[in-house]
Amino acid sequence: MVCIVHLTEKPVLNDPILIEGLPGIGFVANIATLHLINELKTPMFGQIHSSSFQDLAITTDNGKARHPTNELYYHKARDNEERDLIILYGNTQALTTFGQYELCGKILDTAHDLGSHLIITLGGLRRDEKITQPPKLYCAASNTETLKKATDLGAQIIEGQIYGIAGLLIGLSPLWNINAFCLLAETPGYYADAAAAREVLQATNKILHIKADMTRLDKAAQTTHEILKTFGMTTQPPDEKAKEKETYTWRI
Amino acid sequence: MVCIVHLTEKPVLNDPILIEGLPGIGFVANIATLHLINELKTPMFGQIHSSSFQDLAITTDNGKARHPTNELYYHKARDNEERDLIILYGNTQALTTFGQYELCGKILDTAHDLGSHLIITLGGLRRDEKITQPPKLYCAASNTETLKKATDLGAQIIEGQIYGIAGLLIGLSPLWNINAFCLLAETPGYYADAAAAREVLQATNKILHIKADMTRLDKAAQTTHEILKTFGMTTQPPDEKAKEKETYTWRI
Amino acid sequence: MVCIVHLTEKPVLNDPILIEGLPGIGFVANIATLHLINELKTPMFGQIHSSSFQDLAITTDNGKARHPTNELYYHKARDNEERDLIILYGNTQALTTFGQYELCGKILDTAHDLGSHLIITLGGLRRDEKITQPPKLYCAASNTETLKKATDLGAQIIEGQIYGIAGLLIGLSPLWNINAFCLLAETPGYYADAAAAREVLQATNKILHIKADMTRLDKAAQTTHEILKTFGMTTQPPDEKAKEKETYTWRI
Amino acid sequence: MVCIVHLTEKPVLNDPILIEGLPGIGFVANIATLHLINELKTPMFGQIHSSSFQDLAITTDNGKARHPTNELYYHKARDNEERDLIILYGNTQALTTFGQYELCGKILDTAHDLGSHLIITLGGLRRDEKITQPPKLYCAASNTETLKKATDLGAQIIEGQIYGIAGLLIGLSPLWNINAFCLLAETPGYYADAAAAREVLQATNKILHIKADMTRLDKAAQTTHEILKTFGMTTQPPDEKAKEKETYTWRI
Repeated sequence: MVCIVHLTEKPVLNDPILIEGLPGIGFVANIATLHLINELKTPMFGQIHSSSFQDLAITTDNGKARHPTNELYYHKARDNEERDLIILYGNTQALTTFGQYELCGKILDTAHDLGSHLIITLGGLRRDEKITQPPKLYCAASNTETLKKATDLGAQIIEGQIYGIAGLLIGLSPLWNINAFCLLAETPGYYADAAAAREVLQATNKILHIKADMTRLDKAAQTTHEILKTFGMTTQPPDEKAKEKETYTWRI
Repeated sequence: MVCIVHLTEKPVLNDPILIEGLPGIGFVANIATLHLINELKTPMFGQIHSSSFQDLAITTDNGKARHPTNELYYHKARDNEERDLIILYGNTQALTTFGQYELCGKILDTAHDLGSHLIITLGGLRRDEKITQPPKLYCAASNTETLKKATDLGAQIIEGQIYGIAGLLIGLSPLWNINAFCLLAETPGYYADAAAAREVLQATNKILHIKADMTRLDKAAQTTHEILKTFGMTTQPPDEKAKEKETYTWRI
Repeated sequence: MVCIVHLTEKPVLNDPILIEGLPGIGFVANIATLHLINELKTPMFGQIHSSSFQDLAITTDNGKARHPTNELYYHKARDNEERDLIILYGNTQALTTFGQYELCGKILDTAHDLGSHLIITLGGLRRDEKITQPPKLYCAASNTETLKKATDLGAQIIEGQIYGIAGLLIGLSPLWNINAFCLLAETPGYYADAAAAREVLQATNKILHIKADMTRLDKAAQTTHEILKTFGMTTQPPDEKAKEKETYTWRI
Repeated sequence: MVCIVHLTEKPVLNDPILIEGLPGIGFVANIATLHLINELKTPMFGQIHSSSFQDLAITTDNGKARHPTNELYYHKARDNEERDLIILYGNTQALTTFGQYELCGKILDTAHDLGSHLIITLGGLRRDEKITQPPKLYCAASNTETLKKATDLGAQIIEGQIYGIAGLLIGLSPLWNINAFCLLAETPGYYADAAAAREVLQATNKILHIKADMTRLDKAAQTTHEILKTFGMTTQPPDEKAKEKETYTWRI
């Protein structure tokens, strides 16, 4: 086993947008995509397993064991406005640099095979100071034209480093002839941040045009919080040492 | 060399159950499977070598060098009750996450090739408080139906994380269309725990129906203890630091 | 993804010399090759991506995300004196030993395919004491004949270890039937050192015979300095601990 | 590049014995094999390069850069007594467990291809107390019959762990149908120990029957000492911390 994409179905999609929703700072992407999956009742069509995920099983109160995995869902537009979607959801990113590149390569292969030309990666931007509500949005993109799409959603340009899958996908996507931008909401980052998730989702939806009830987003945040607890992830404010290693704290 | 399964024989087995018995907390699985191998005089039909095992040789008082390895044994039912078995025994798990996934993949390939549909992983569940005798049993499974088999043996459902091969096998087995459950006995975990091994073995045997004398199980615990000593593994109660790293302490 | 050379063009070159210019001590090679790229307006004909580079994206003030990469440029001689060049420029070396070997193998494959018989690796040699201007030059080579070329440029023979790509390329090049020497200038090493870069470039040019204006070299140093800042690289003098790890400090 | 055996010649040998002489504790194997290479003027017929060796070049006073490598030499018997030999000499072992397994696999492939049925690995056994001269010899072997050969040379059976290539080769050799034993001499271990090297070599020679002058062995120790200095290896007695990590101190 190395990094395997296991498709149970190959959906026929019309220029789908891939939304990346793996765990990260504030679990913003995780909450936002879980909400879409719940609301749209999107079918799961594949799983990604990697030997760079943790080597353990996690059991829940029903005793069924789960292991670290990424899941692929799709949504077919229900009217002329909605966009076809591929949703990447999961309970982990890869543990190593090598594994992250390998995982990104597999995600980009899959997006390319399904005819995607745009990837939106979601996430949180950690802020130590008090965050005004609604939290501000930040963005970066694989090229100038795609950046325009993100700034049109009300996001400011971010300067600096974007760690993990959210950053790597926008850096590597041009090699697959795919455009990509990331949309990050300010967050304290140490709990499942529903407000930040709502903000990135509402902004993204100006492109997706998905008719989804936002009232139940808190439920997705609550579920995410419970999954975190199962995985033994702390939800206390990080101390200085933890902050240094923040790229790790949000990985399972 | 990466991870190689070296079969000296391909046994013809009837719907065999694979019992995982690699070193882990309290060496519960190690003792239990060594006892089965001793009592049933099961033939070894293969070895697994991995570049993720330690790079050393261990010599015993007869001067013969051994290296870290996993071994495969089989048992053919001797009457209408007994089940055919594949026993995975060894002196190590893999040292890295990558190696653990690779090893699991090879084990699952082998189980699948030999027609297995059920894997039982054994182990210890570390408890710091005093353990009432007989030690309590805990379980988790790859699906609800298989979980029922484990709870029928008198085990309670465990919530949390199951590290190492015992956890990874039940998490990954569905990808090979194999069911799996783990059975863990409470143990202080810092010595070769014969009582815990007896408990998981007796419970498992309600499924296996193996006619095996349990009186010599202490001998298997003693042998396991001596192997540990050869490998330089400490048998003192772990201090706080060691407990944090318990996923490592039980690997050779 | 592992380590991929992505060529957009295969230039036809006449016995080209490959100049290595990846980030290292004092960013000497980085500045020198960036200056050549700027002055000669050399076309980029390929990129090297590796899963041993960092897993992040870096955004600049225009919001366009970049990821760690190596780039290949070529220069065709404009008169009878100039030599054809392959310039290897980039914002990173590989993070691991394994990745460095893999990257070197790909660079040497490419150099060999394009008909190169000589590689010149540039760099800085860290000195704690005050450096007299112009900084002294040091060299080492893959064989005695090639070493003569380097000492003829006024460089002294260096004794000791040469870390990173600059050293590895001269050690491995004979396996590809390519000669190589390295040219290192003394530098304090903790900032983008234009003076050291000028020195290696002027010496190298006695072989390359490139007509390039050296007055704008400070601009290349300034650009390099700004790229470093974006990558969050410190430009303070290293403390004792940092010096021990100097092979890492100059990697992104 | 991963791990490559680069043969420049395939010698025809008669049941050759492979002598392993990579750097280790006291550099015993290194000195002993270098002495054989010097005295027998054995031709080098191959090199092993691995991406698990260090990523650097080492330059000597003649400015020629060397990189970490393993070399293969052969000796053809000059009379009816001498045995054909394959000598594995080098300036490094692999840096990682994975790399060590990979390297061993390649060594065993080569030994098998050249018709070898016996491998002798040499080394030092670190002793903190004063060592009586001549130093005592210890041994271990892949099987009982081969162990007899080693004890017949006057070596005592060692109990415990044998790290590195010396141990791994005797543990893995049976998978290639090759026998192997190791011969270790007591040594303080922190300098190039000519006395220990002489002891293992004289004992081994009862099997090899090589007519080699032992008077110049000190020269091989001196050369080894100088190579160590070039590689920046300390020759002071190790402190407590260093002793814990002794498996690393003797790797380059």
